Amino acid sequence: MQISGRNKLFGEIVEIKLGGVVSEVTIQVGENQIAGVITTTSVENMELAIGDRVTALIKATEVSFIK
Amino acid sequence: MQISGRNKLFGEIVEIKLGGVVSEVTIQVGENQIAGVITTTSVENMELAIGDRVTALIKATEVSFIK
Amino acid sequence: MQISGRNKLFGEIVEIKLGGVVSEVTIQVGENQIAGVITTTSVENMELAIGDRVTALIKATEVSFIK
Amino acid sequence: MQISGRNKLFGEIVEIKLGGVVSEVTIQVGENQIAGVITTTSVENMELAIGDRVTALIKATEVSFIK
Amino acid sequence: MQISGRNKLFGEIVEIKLGGVVSEVTIQVGENQIAGVITTTSVENMELAIGDRVTALIKATEVSFIK
Amino acid sequence: MQISGRNKLFGEIVEIKLGGVVSEVTIQVGENQIAGVITTTSVENMELAIGDRVTALIKATEVSFIK
Repeated sequence: MQISGRNKLFGEIVEIKLGGVVSEVTIQVGENQIAGVITTTSVENMELAIGDRVTALIKATEVSFIK
Repeated sequence: MQISGRNKLFGEIVEIKLGGVVSEVTIQVGENQIAGVITTTSVENMELAIGDRVTALIKATEVSFIK
Repeated sequence: MQISGRNKLFGEIVEIKLGGVVSEVTIQVGENQIAGVITTTSVENMELAIGDRVTALIKATEVSFIK
Repeated sequence: MQISGRNKLFGEIVEIKLGGVVSEVTIQVGENQIAGVITTTSVENMELAIGDRVTALIKATEVSFIK
Repeated sequence: MQISGRNKLFGEIVEIKLGGVVSEVTIQVGENQIAGVITTTSVENMELAIGDRVTALIKATEVSFIK
Repeated sequence: MQISGRNKLFGEIVEIKLGGVVSEVTIQVGENQIAGVITTTSVENMELAIGDRVTALIKATEVSFIK
């Protein structure tokens, strides 16, 4: 299976902040942390938990650059 | 100066694919590469070039997870 | 494998408009057509072609409603 | 009136999950369901309710593909 | 007709940069300019031209803040 | 410092609606109001408050047009 989303960062979940509709999931990727806001329904459907090893997926059109 | 965008990944530009309206800029961040599609106007205004050290900025609402 | 992106629409590629940096891929999903703009690199890496059966993936935070 | 957003999917609201700041609205489109996260202010301003017939609007740059 | 997208900025098209797949449309809104990248198909379908009075539509989840 | 995000609208915060995971921040820009949904963590880290003068940042790929 292949996904067109160009950026795939593999890491471990270090924090989950649960909300009623959306939740914030943070993973550790090397020296960086990546935070994502997804629906709480997805957190529950995927049974995401601290320590899970997951991949953050980011479409190239969503990336900006600072110089 | 602070930006609300939660994810900031610092790296070095390794490739720039110039297009008429949008361009693709790729940076090396540790073991990962991050590709971003931005306007060619921004590439020119910022004078982005291979070897530049820049920060990729990604809003948390744009991050999905794969498990 | 599970993806947090909530909307997954299965269909058949009916058109590919190739550009230098980004390309437009259109799929037929029942009575609707879904057009997506992805990097041309992804079109090539995934060897997308007319007639391929693929799934369009859309994060819930990207959906608006008109009434 | 025309909107540049390329993907317009017409359906009926089957679920509304209200939150303090954002809410999740789900519509039935043929055999598929489309979930969108919008501000609760918009749910209230538009007086969205189960059974309403609405159109989901999705910009082409927000669509990824899985093969 | 109502759209859930919270930000609607009314202005006049001052520049169109046409590309093969996507195009950049810039409007003047008071003292600010707003640039949007949309598909060239939409530019053609909507027959967008310099001088047209249009509304830029931006979902609240796409806005970041700098302080 | 330069950011590739093309649209930067300077204004004053007129409302903050705090949520558990995400919050809505509204600024006044000339005659328009711009609402953004960002993580509550960012609101806290940046110590955003009513009356603060901030810049809304919007990537060109996130802008649609209505005619």
